[in-house]
Amino acid sequence: MNLILLHPEDFLGSNKRVSLAGRRLDHILRVHRASVGDELRVGIIGGAVGRGKVIRMDRVTLEMEVHVDAEPPPKLPLTLLLALPRPKVLKRILRSATSLGVRRIILMNCARVEKSYWQSPFLEQEAIREQLVLGLEQARDTVLPDLMLRPLFKPFMEDELPRLIKGTLPVMAHPGSPESCSFAHSEQDVTLAIGPEGGFVPYEIDKLISCGFAAVQFGERTLSVETAVPALIGRLFL
Amino acid sequence: MNLILLHPEDFLGSNKRVSLAGRRLDHILRVHRASVGDELRVGIIGGAVGRGKVIRMDRVTLEMEVHVDAEPPPKLPLTLLLALPRPKVLKRILRSATSLGVRRIILMNCARVEKSYWQSPFLEQEAIREQLVLGLEQARDTVLPDLMLRPLFKPFMEDELPRLIKGTLPVMAHPGSPESCSFAHSEQDVTLAIGPEGGFVPYEIDKLISCGFAAVQFGERTLSVETAVPALIGRLFL
Repeated sequence: MNLILLHPEDFLGSNKRVSLAGRRLDHILRVHRASVGDELRVGIIGGAVGRGKVIRMDRVTLEMEVHVDAEPPPKLPLTLLLALPRPKVLKRILRSATSLGVRRIILMNCARVEKSYWQSPFLEQEAIREQLVLGLEQARDTVLPDLMLRPLFKPFMEDELPRLIKGTLPVMAHPGSPESCSFAHSEQDVTLAIGPEGGFVPYEIDKLISCGFAAVQFGERTLSVETAVPALIGRLFL
Repeated sequence: MNLILLHPEDFLGSNKRVSLAGRRLDHILRVHRASVGDELRVGIIGGAVGRGKVIRMDRVTLEMEVHVDAEPPPKLPLTLLLALPRPKVLKRILRSATSLGVRRIILMNCARVEKSYWQSPFLEQEAIREQLVLGLEQARDTVLPDLMLRPLFKPFMEDELPRLIKGTLPVMAHPGSPESCSFAHSEQDVTLAIGPEGGFVPYEIDKLISCGFAAVQFGERTLSVETAVPALIGRLFL
């Protein structure tokens, strides 16, 4: 937690005083070992970042006076189109992609996505938000990425995706492709599609290509999705 | 397991016939759903890659006739100098770094590395090797990275590191640095130092700089070590 992320319900009447308990208080006590008078980095969810001065604290609550005046780091101009990974991996990828600044994450169905993944409690709105918040706190960001769940491949490909990728460079990571990725440090909007473990099936590759995606490889090694997401984002945007 | 990695003890007398059981057999049955006559990708640890044809199988053993004639993918010219992460994260980082092709991994002590991490059973030779093998199988590689454990920071910095980084570009990932990383797609040998969660302490930064490391940042976001490793490798080498 490199930033204490504040939510509207933390504010005590005024727009400067907040009261914290639970996980954030515990972290402030245990990791920051803060005392009254100390200043900590804070940010308001969806808003500005700045400093919070500890005014009062005991073992169950902490009050801070906050001054926020700076912008959070800019998002990457990236939509990540990801075959739904298995739940434990999904949690880590959501944190990792959020910390890297991905603007939009779309989790979609594919032939090689196990049906049971769509029933996972980790896909409930609160569970997803928890991971996104951890990713924001890691990277001192305040703006949640957009997250979309698309459990039906064909209607998503045909009715929605063409509109979503308009104005972006649509790229599909495809280890078998003869074409290497030819751009880096992109300032252009990119939509990056990453398939499930085992890859997209040919039908899905055809659908993505007919939608406008270029199939490119990023080296001859086949990576796990969990490694591919940060590695390809690093390749394209860092 | 995108490649069935074969070890000397798998070979049955001749240099072509192998017998497998346990984890690899289970994977071949459950994921590849292979039958007699099928061909699978194989590689010999430390050696060539090729195909194995299933000759005979039941629920407890499988025999293959193997033909290997191709080189595994080349390693990245990278030494990763990493503050020892906590054990669960270490396991994932070892797999991920190995799958990306890191040639050498040095796990070192730092002030912000908890002492208990050095007592973890995950640091035993067999436990480390297990993760490295999983990384090789993922990326269809056969050559284990060199792995070095250095639990004493100062003697390592003073007596050993200067020699190890000779002929490489030594770079320290340092989120606070005013200097951005200015190179990519490196064909030069690189030594990349990544600190613990919470970062290197000033003494460690000074030591690394006096050893010849350049402190550079890779964007304004502070990443977890687990995300930073693949993201920075992607940034530098993919």
